[in-house]
Amino acid sequence: MASEKQPAIILGIDPGTCVTGYGIIRVESSVLRALDYGCIRPPAHLKLSDRYLIIFESIEELLEKYQPSALVVESQYMSNNANVRNVKSTLKLGMACGISILAAKRKKIPVFEYAPAKAKRAVVGNGAASKHQVRGMVQQLLQLPEPPHPEDASDALSLAICHAHACSSNHIEI
Amino acid sequence: MASEKQPAIILGIDPGTCVTGYGIIRVESSVLRALDYGCIRPPAHLKLSDRYLIIFESIEELLEKYQPSALVVESQYMSNNANVRNVKSTLKLGMACGISILAAKRKKIPVFEYAPAKAKRAVVGNGAASKHQVRGMVQQLLQLPEPPHPEDASDALSLAICHAHACSSNHIEI
Repeated sequence: MASEKQPAIILGIDPGTCVTGYGIIRVESSVLRALDYGCIRPPAHLKLSDRYLIIFESIEELLEKYQPSALVVESQYMSNNANVRNVKSTLKLGMACGISILAAKRKKIPVFEYAPAKAKRAVVGNGAASKHQVRGMVQQLLQLPEPPHPEDASDALSLAICHAHACSSNHIEI
Repeated sequence: MASEKQPAIILGIDPGTCVTGYGIIRVESSVLRALDYGCIRPPAHLKLSDRYLIIFESIEELLEKYQPSALVVESQYMSNNANVRNVKSTLKLGMACGISILAAKRKKIPVFEYAPAKAKRAVVGNGAASKHQVRGMVQQLLQLPEPPHPEDASDALSLAICHAHACSSNHIEI
């Protein structure tokens, strides 16, 4: 994927019911470049099920447009994760994550996951780095004119970068 | 939906990564009849993402075959729910639930949810009923020759029955 010869396109997704961040990078000869990033924000007044459909269809559009070779999500399996506050929000997060994975699998795109600390370590070199530090390093690694905004998009880009770095042995397809 | 004149078909889903129960009932003139029930068991050796794809495609097949007017899932938002043991299993449950909801929404079928106690109350008359009691009453209400097996299918049928009973005011589309 991150070989010296064959360029690869990686889609990172930071799923959420309110905001789903995405970041698409191109890897060629060890050079990383951001193709696109941003977030999917289904209107908050919609029913949860309608919001899931919007997230799913938006990810399908990204897959169609950029034809990535991998989709990468965060493994949020740590009970002390700040995003996992209670059973209700954990279930909702799981739902958003599940439909992101499904969008890729329906197109036969492999799915990978990394723990938040691993993604931070890949980008900043420190698994306990702050969001601010991550944004700064994502900007630097991708040579962006400014730190990626919003935070969810920065997190998604950091997952894609993590996968680009992890191509040797330690990536896990889920 | 459960009016005296128009028959309705309801699909209950009890989602899970290992076993997803389903139950389809037909409601006509207040008479309930089971059209089909059982469970989806993706091979345990498969990656999670492949198992989600199998669950999704199996539910799509059920929707195609029976053309239900509603899909019903359990709202598992109680922290003391026995199925929600930890963050990891909660996330997985959310993923399986999310893709079940998505399968329906992609076909414009409305999705409803009920708390476990509500489904038990609708079937047995007691929100704290045992699984055994639920199976017995599901068998009786649907006039089945024996209690529905496995438990996941019985739970899915009880959700469909709950929705049939709740058609007046207290169903919630999610």
